[in-house]
Amino acid sequence: MFTLGRRFPLSNVQNIRNIFTWFSRKFPVEAPQTTLVFVEEVRRFIQECVCRVGVSQKKSRSIADFLLAADYRGVNGSGLNRLEMYLNDIHKRNVNIEAEPSVIKETASFAHVNGNSALGVTVGNFCIDLAVEKARNAGIGLVVAKQSHHFGMAAWYVSRAMAHGYIGLVLSNGPPQLMSPGVQTSSLGANCIAFGAKGLHTHFLLDIAMSVKDIGAIEWAYLLGEGIPDSWAADKRGLPTSVADVAICAQRLFPAGEHKGYCMAAMIDLLCGVMSGAGYSTHIPSSWSDSKSTNSNLGQIYIAIDPQFFLPDFEERLEDFNQTIKYSCPIDELDPVKIPGDIEKQHMQYVRDLRALPYPNALLMKYQVIADLLCVKPIQVAFNYPEKTKHYSE
Amino acid sequence: MFTLGRRFPLSNVQNIRNIFTWFSRKFPVEAPQTTLVFVEEVRRFIQECVCRVGVSQKKSRSIADFLLAADYRGVNGSGLNRLEMYLNDIHKRNVNIEAEPSVIKETASFAHVNGNSALGVTVGNFCIDLAVEKARNAGIGLVVAKQSHHFGMAAWYVSRAMAHGYIGLVLSNGPPQLMSPGVQTSSLGANCIAFGAKGLHTHFLLDIAMSVKDIGAIEWAYLLGEGIPDSWAADKRGLPTSVADVAICAQRLFPAGEHKGYCMAAMIDLLCGVMSGAGYSTHIPSSWSDSKSTNSNLGQIYIAIDPQFFLPDFEERLEDFNQTIKYSCPIDELDPVKIPGDIEKQHMQYVRDLRALPYPNALLMKYQVIADLLCVKPIQVAFNYPEKTKHYSE
Repeated sequence: MFTLGRRFPLSNVQNIRNIFTWFSRKFPVEAPQTTLVFVEEVRRFIQECVCRVGVSQKKSRSIADFLLAADYRGVNGSGLNRLEMYLNDIHKRNVNIEAEPSVIKETASFAHVNGNSALGVTVGNFCIDLAVEKARNAGIGLVVAKQSHHFGMAAWYVSRAMAHGYIGLVLSNGPPQLMSPGVQTSSLGANCIAFGAKGLHTHFLLDIAMSVKDIGAIEWAYLLGEGIPDSWAADKRGLPTSVADVAICAQRLFPAGEHKGYCMAAMIDLLCGVMSGAGYSTHIPSSWSDSKSTNSNLGQIYIAIDPQFFLPDFEERLEDFNQTIKYSCPIDELDPVKIPGDIEKQHMQYVRDLRALPYPNALLMKYQVIADLLCVKPIQVAFNYPEKTKHYSE
Repeated sequence: MFTLGRRFPLSNVQNIRNIFTWFSRKFPVEAPQTTLVFVEEVRRFIQECVCRVGVSQKKSRSIADFLLAADYRGVNGSGLNRLEMYLNDIHKRNVNIEAEPSVIKETASFAHVNGNSALGVTVGNFCIDLAVEKARNAGIGLVVAKQSHHFGMAAWYVSRAMAHGYIGLVLSNGPPQLMSPGVQTSSLGANCIAFGAKGLHTHFLLDIAMSVKDIGAIEWAYLLGEGIPDSWAADKRGLPTSVADVAICAQRLFPAGEHKGYCMAAMIDLLCGVMSGAGYSTHIPSSWSDSKSTNSNLGQIYIAIDPQFFLPDFEERLEDFNQTIKYSCPIDELDPVKIPGDIEKQHMQYVRDLRALPYPNALLMKYQVIADLLCVKPIQVAFNYPEKTKHYSE
C-alpha cells in the first residue's frame, strides 16, 4: 500500500539544510523555524494516517490522544514526531494492530500481563486502568507487562491514575541507547520513569529518561537544524558529538549523573525486562534502526496507589511539600524552584491560548511526503504562506 | 553518664591537621593514613559502646551487624563512622532504644508501619522481614514505614530479601542535604534507593544516594585529610567547595545528574515522607546539626518480590543480563563493565583475606576519645605501633 524507507529524512535527505533549501525554493518567503498548526488539524491528520494503515477508529483516537498529549505538554519528540515510527512499525508488522493485551496471572493487587505485541498505547492504557481498578479494591495495584511496544510519553499513563486521585508510577525499558561510562556501545535503553500525584491545588508530575536527554529531544534539535551540547550523546566511536544527526544515527546517549543514571536504567531494565519475561538490554531490537523486522517485546510496570490507604490528608501534605520546595531560597526570588510538571504546565497554557501547536517546518515537510505516500490530506498550517508561484516551484 | 558534643571532631578539632599533629606527637612514627582492625575487635567495640548507653544485648548485635556490613562492603562512612551519630541520637533521646515498630494497618500484600522512633535498624529489619513474609504468601510484599530513624546502608535490608531469593527494593528519605539547581539551600534529603536481585552465579546490588556523592564519602575524605572534587558539594553560600570540612558543615550536596537527581529525590521523599505520614523536605531535623533535639521521623519503603511469581527462570535471565552488560564492548577489554555490587564484592574479598577492616587513623582517634567518655576499652589495632615513649607523650 505504501513504502516508507528507514526514517524518511535521515536516509533520503543528507542533512536538514537540504529540506530547508527545497522548502525555501518552494515557498518564496524566508521560512520561520516553526509553524503553528491547530490542535484539531493535527488530530485529524494522525487519525487519518493510522486509519489508512489499518488501525481501527477507536484505536486511532487513542493514538491521536496520547501523541497530542505529548505535544500539548511540550514533550518535544514524543508527539507527532513519533507518528512516523509507529506507522513504520505497523507497516513492518512489528506491532499487531488487532491484538489486545491479556492477563496471564492475577491476584487482588497484582497482575502479570501479556501485551501480545499490541500497540504500546493499547497495552499502556489497559495496564494502568487495571492497576487503578486493583488500587480501588486493594489500596495498591501493580501490573507487570511483557510483549509491549513503545508507549510514548510515560506521563500519559500516570495522568490516567492521577485522574482517579491516585499516585501513579510507570516504568518502561527500551532499545539500547544508553552508554555505560567506559564503554563504546549502548547496552541499555534510556529507560524511563514517570511518577505523579495530585495535591490540593498543584500537582507533581515527573517524567524522565535515564539519559542526560532523551532521543526525542535530539530529534527535535535536528528538525530545528540546531546543534546539541556534547554532553548529551556520542558518535559511533563513543566520542562526544554536538551534531544531532550524528547522535541520532549512533544511538549512544550519555547517562544522567554518569554511573548513577546507568545503574538506575539497569534497575528499570531488570524489573521491566528480566523479571517480566520481556526483552532486555541488547536483546531488544531498535525501532530506530532498519535491522531485522521484529517486535520489540518491551516490558513495563504500572503502579497505582490510593494515598487514602495510608493517610486521609495526603493532598494537603503534598501541597505543603510542593510549596516548601518551591520557595526554598532560590538564587532569584522572582524565579521560584520548579516542581516537576511546572514547565509543562506553562507550555499547556500557551497551547490553550493559541489552540495551536508549534512544529518545526522540517517535521511538517516530512509529513507532507508521508501524506502523499498514504494519500491523506496533508497537515494544514494555522496560517498560510503566500501561494507558491510558477517562478519558485520546481 | 557521658557527654558528647556536636559530632566530636567537627566541633572540638578545627581541622584534620590538629588530630594528626596530636597523633604524630603521640606516636614516634610517621602515621600511615589508615590502620587495620580485626573485624571481631570492631564488633566488640560497637557492642560495648551501644550497651553502655543502654541498648540491649540483642539490639547491640543488630547494630554491630549492619555497621560492620557497611565497612565489609567498603561503603565508607556508613559503618563504624556512623556509630558516633547513633550514640549521639540515643543520648539525646532522638531515638527510643526500648521501642519496637508496630503495624498500623495491613492486608495480605501491604503494611503501614509505625516505627515508634525505634532504632533505624530495628525498624528496617522488622519492615523488610514483614515484606518478605508477605511476598512469600502473596508474591509481593510492600511495607511503608513512618517514625523511623537513620537506617544506615540500605543495601543491608535488600540483602535480607535476597537471602530468601527475593528481589529487594528499599527507599528512604533523609534530612535536607540536597540543593536544587538554582537554589542556595538544601530542601531535600540525599534520599537513597537500594535494589538487589540474585542471578544464577552473580548478583545485582545497587545502593545509591541521589546526590553526586553521599555525605559519608565526604566525611571519609575529611577523616583521611583529603580534598574533594568541587562537583560534590557546596559551601554555606551555595558555591562549590573542595574542602571536605566546609562541605560537612554546609550540608549542601549537588544532585546526581543535576535536576534529574533532584527530581528523583523529590519522588522518593513524596513516597517515603508525604505518603507515609513521616517527615519530609525541610520538616526533617538534621542528625548532622546540633539544632533542637527531636526525633527525625524518617519515612521508608520496603519491597520484596518473589520473581517466581512471574517467571520460573528469573535467575538464568538475570545471569544473562549481568553477562550481557559486563561484556558490552568496554574501551579496555581487560576491564569489563562493573555490575552494581562488583566493586563491593572486591572489597569484601580483600576484607575476608585479611580478616580486618581498614579505618582512617583520625576515625580511630575519635573513637579513642569516645571510648574514654564511655569507659569502654578502646579499639585495638590489628598491628601495633611502637610503644609511646615519655619523650613523645603529652
